[in-house]
Amino acid sequence: MTQVETLTGVFADRLVECVDRKRSQLVLGLDPVLDLLPVELQGEARAGPQACADAVTRFCRGLIDAAAPACVAIKPQLAFFEAFGSHGLRAFENACAYARDAGLLVIADAKRGDIGSTARAYAAAYVEPRDGGRPVADAITVNAYLGRESVEPFLTACKRHGAGLFIVTKTSNAGSADVQDLRLRDGDVVWHRVALLAREWGEELLGERGLSSVGLVMGATYPRAVGEARRLCPQQVLLLPGIGAQGAGPAEVARAFTSGPASALVAVSRAIDYAFRARGGDWRTAAGAEASRLRDEVWSVSGW
Amino acid sequence: MTQVETLTGVFADRLVECVDRKRSQLVLGLDPVLDLLPVELQGEARAGPQACADAVTRFCRGLIDAAAPACVAIKPQLAFFEAFGSHGLRAFENACAYARDAGLLVIADAKRGDIGSTARAYAAAYVEPRDGGRPVADAITVNAYLGRESVEPFLTACKRHGAGLFIVTKTSNAGSADVQDLRLRDGDVVWHRVALLAREWGEELLGERGLSSVGLVMGATYPRAVGEARRLCPQQVLLLPGIGAQGAGPAEVARAFTSGPASALVAVSRAIDYAFRARGGDWRTAAGAEASRLRDEVWSVSGW
Repeated sequence: MTQVETLTGVFADRLVECVDRKRSQLVLGLDPVLDLLPVELQGEARAGPQACADAVTRFCRGLIDAAAPACVAIKPQLAFFEAFGSHGLRAFENACAYARDAGLLVIADAKRGDIGSTARAYAAAYVEPRDGGRPVADAITVNAYLGRESVEPFLTACKRHGAGLFIVTKTSNAGSADVQDLRLRDGDVVWHRVALLAREWGEELLGERGLSSVGLVMGATYPRAVGEARRLCPQQVLLLPGIGAQGAGPAEVARAFTSGPASALVAVSRAIDYAFRARGGDWRTAAGAEASRLRDEVWSVSGW
Repeated sequence: MTQVETLTGVFADRLVECVDRKRSQLVLGLDPVLDLLPVELQGEARAGPQACADAVTRFCRGLIDAAAPACVAIKPQLAFFEAFGSHGLRAFENACAYARDAGLLVIADAKRGDIGSTARAYAAAYVEPRDGGRPVADAITVNAYLGRESVEPFLTACKRHGAGLFIVTKTSNAGSADVQDLRLRDGDVVWHRVALLAREWGEELLGERGLSSVGLVMGATYPRAVGEARRLCPQQVLLLPGIGAQGAGPAEVARAFTSGPASALVAVSRAIDYAFRARGGDWRTAAGAEASRLRDEVWSVSGW
């Protein structure tokens, strides 16, 4: 595993540098689920909450070791750590620190969204320096249903600490239409408006390489929406979950990359984490091979 | 502090029973912020992350002891615990267990919202029995921007484990209009549609006392919206933050209670937690007095 200096500066520029250097737009999603862990780790995990967190930590470290050469970032999904309680949150912190030591960016998939004073606490928890050290994560996913005020503390963290954020805009799930696709009086749908808000918030956070530190989460399962988002927000990084277990293929989101090699990131979780279930063999080897394959495929369809 | 049996059964019915018994619709919000803690606890807290979590735990326990007689539930805001990392989450778990032992319901103010598989993990984390024991919380606040699929696992927890949930609908903050008040083609605004979805989801979760276990979060700072929500959703419990530090008074939300004494809950956080800053004296005594005063005022305006 390569050791690199902890990167500093504007998030978007760090990302561009990382994508260029690694020729990868792949993000390793970490979704640790007890029942899906390799048998050896499941056994350990069942000894209690502490042992469970230790097993999750080992799983995450193993995946990071295996997939790091092919990835630019990890995207731990907080829910799967919170499901193990406070021990799980320790495993999350551990995985984040381990990934950053391995030269990977960390995108905390938290989808937090709350009123201003509460959002400040969330920003402090994830993207501001804690206990005199570095932040737990480089970037965080944010739900903007509560409006600009709820996003403001994260924008401040972007300005002061070089954080990044991804506004949850049009999600990969089947039910995303219920609220996100509601048709507005002027013909737009709700998620268009969220995308435009994100663009506005991101204008003051443009890096030197032309991309903003405020990106969008856009489900790869809706390729047409991804294309619309690309048009609406040419300077935003699109974080694209939904490839693999959720059914979309990299080719379907090729147009997301038209604003530059780093203008979209493909986040793959279960298809890498549990690659051994399809490929057989050692779980680390399987994850590394699947990450490498996906990196190549995504880089190829991105056209760069 | 009164010890009562852990209540079982449908969340809405447990809530009605609790409101009737205590003649209170007050919810103690827990927002532990280091810089606002009583001086004695601040000193302890600065010795490190572990000591900090211990101080937060003592603060929460003190508030629960003081306010329990006047309240039906606590509403710990997860952000303020997450800001202390994994140690903070332990303090959160501790506060929840302590409150339930004191006969209070626990509403985890998490505002989580994610795709189905992830939402299942959040439900497991907060409102399903964990490690063979009881759930951490009785109910949770949920953000429905990702649609029904993202709410489904919580509905399942309501059915199987007697959980409750509160859908974030129209929030108390100034910026809530940015997305929630967007005007739809048919004249409704976005939050109306969210309220109607919550009503639909809650129809299968009506308790014997006529209220649903699926409620709404409605900011008390928008009394007119609260009235509209009451009309749109007569069987939903309205969880009303925004009284006190955020500027609204109990009288402004009187109409929320027209569906019964337990049909609305007033959640007050900072005005109780930090009552000693305005009232002086011991922080526990101040919190207890303020909770008692608010309980009486809310009960009185509720008209029951």
